Amino acid sequence: MHFMTALKAAWRQRDSLLCVGLDPDPAKFPAHLAGRPQAIFEFCRDIVDATADLVCAFKPQIAYFAAHRAEDQLEALIDHIHERHPGTPVILDAKRGDIGSTAEQYAVEAFERFRADAITVNPYMGRDSVEPYLAYGDKGVILLCRTSNPGGSDLQFLDVGGEKLYERVARLVAEEWNASGNCGLVVGATFPAEIARVREIVGEVPLLVPGIGAQGGDIAATVAAGCTADGTGLMINSSRAILYAGKNEDFAAAARSVAQDTRAAINAHR
Amino acid sequence: MHFMTALKAAWRQRDSLLCVGLDPDPAKFPAHLAGRPQAIFEFCRDIVDATADLVCAFKPQIAYFAAHRAEDQLEALIDHIHERHPGTPVILDAKRGDIGSTAEQYAVEAFERFRADAITVNPYMGRDSVEPYLAYGDKGVILLCRTSNPGGSDLQFLDVGGEKLYERVARLVAEEWNASGNCGLVVGATFPAEIARVREIVGEVPLLVPGIGAQGGDIAATVAAGCTADGTGLMINSSRAILYAGKNEDFAAAARSVAQDTRAAINAHR
Repeated sequence: MHFMTALKAAWRQRDSLLCVGLDPDPAKFPAHLAGRPQAIFEFCRDIVDATADLVCAFKPQIAYFAAHRAEDQLEALIDHIHERHPGTPVILDAKRGDIGSTAEQYAVEAFERFRADAITVNPYMGRDSVEPYLAYGDKGVILLCRTSNPGGSDLQFLDVGGEKLYERVARLVAEEWNASGNCGLVVGATFPAEIARVREIVGEVPLLVPGIGAQGGDIAATVAAGCTADGTGLMINSSRAILYAGKNEDFAAAARSVAQDTRAAINAHR
Repeated sequence: MHFMTALKAAWRQRDSLLCVGLDPDPAKFPAHLAGRPQAIFEFCRDIVDATADLVCAFKPQIAYFAAHRAEDQLEALIDHIHERHPGTPVILDAKRGDIGSTAEQYAVEAFERFRADAITVNPYMGRDSVEPYLAYGDKGVILLCRTSNPGGSDLQFLDVGGEKLYERVARLVAEEWNASGNCGLVVGATFPAEIARVREIVGEVPLLVPGIGAQGGDIAATVAAGCTADGTGLMINSSRAILYAGKNEDFAAAARSVAQDTRAAINAHR
């Protein structure tokens, strides 16, 4: 299924703009998982099963798997999502960015090896570094635009001929790279005014918004700034606040409870 | 050993500015390797053993391993380089770029799991996205500045207050991020004038220069534009032209021959 079709269906059917980020850190896992060889998979699987009906997407962060030699567990996790929770889009948060021939390899990694429905991509190397992902057609390509971290301003907020660099990226995506309608943009929740500005530039293009929860972004301001006219258009990501809501064997139930509250908090402002 | 110490020693001892890029594409391997489970490792190992005395560094491109589920072969390859060719710096070409907590995971991946001596990093997310790599101190952190691909101009060539974005990145690195002296910059051989401009901005900071060989960059212009006063300062990368110089069982000897010619062509202009 086309990523955008699946995303729109998930927004509607689950009545949710919540994306749960899967950033598994074994040091924060409940004690009963310690030492288990598939602990990363098992932890994420239980989070997924406890929250799938509440989310519009899952977003595994590949760095957390790669640091632990756990690519096989990431493969198993995404397979599990596709099999048990069909129709739930999986965004591989990889922020890749390289010349075309190398980007082709990363696209194989994301879309064929890991079977992700979408990938996050860094725009610094320009159009031909993005095209190999766009060429898949039915996959989502979510470009970094205005990131939620403090250093995000170092380059993204520079003035480039009457607009900021992040605005130029938004415009490049909206006017050129999104010809097939499969692009999205990353805009941090820590900057609601800039979410509004990006929304103004890109029309209906979906925005992936990290930075609520542990990073301190405001839900009401994010929804007000970023929703499209039909009250969708956003994938509002929360990772740590949900994953580590509980510290014991009931961690998945604790995660579900926080996910429910977060979805409700978002929906209260739509 | 500190990456910069190893690099300077390799420049001098091997009398070489040549970096061999390890971008293994099984479709281009000699026929006798077809179907072998460790073909990626074996191919790269033979290239490494045939060229190590001719290079200042090796640069494995992680995408080519990840697309083939071959992270274990990348680990084995880097172990092999450290054991058989000690003192040869290994640059993991990964172009990572993410918020601090995620960058910490990528740094573990690159420096602890894969035992790389340096990593390439994308600057788009700014200072705190780079700091976790810098924190390793003895590892090299090589920031994308002016890349060799056609789309490189889309953002990097934008004017930001009287300079180009790539010049701002070079200045940020030289004036702020390189406080511990472990930074380098990527500047494509396809733009010699911009290599010269970056050299002017950054002083002695080493430049990793892809784009000669298959991508068409000019060796004489690259050396003239980029060398420091002592005739070093560059890691001039060639991948495909060396890796796929031969198509048969003698591929490693063919690679050595092209590597010798490339080193000589570089040295003729130093």
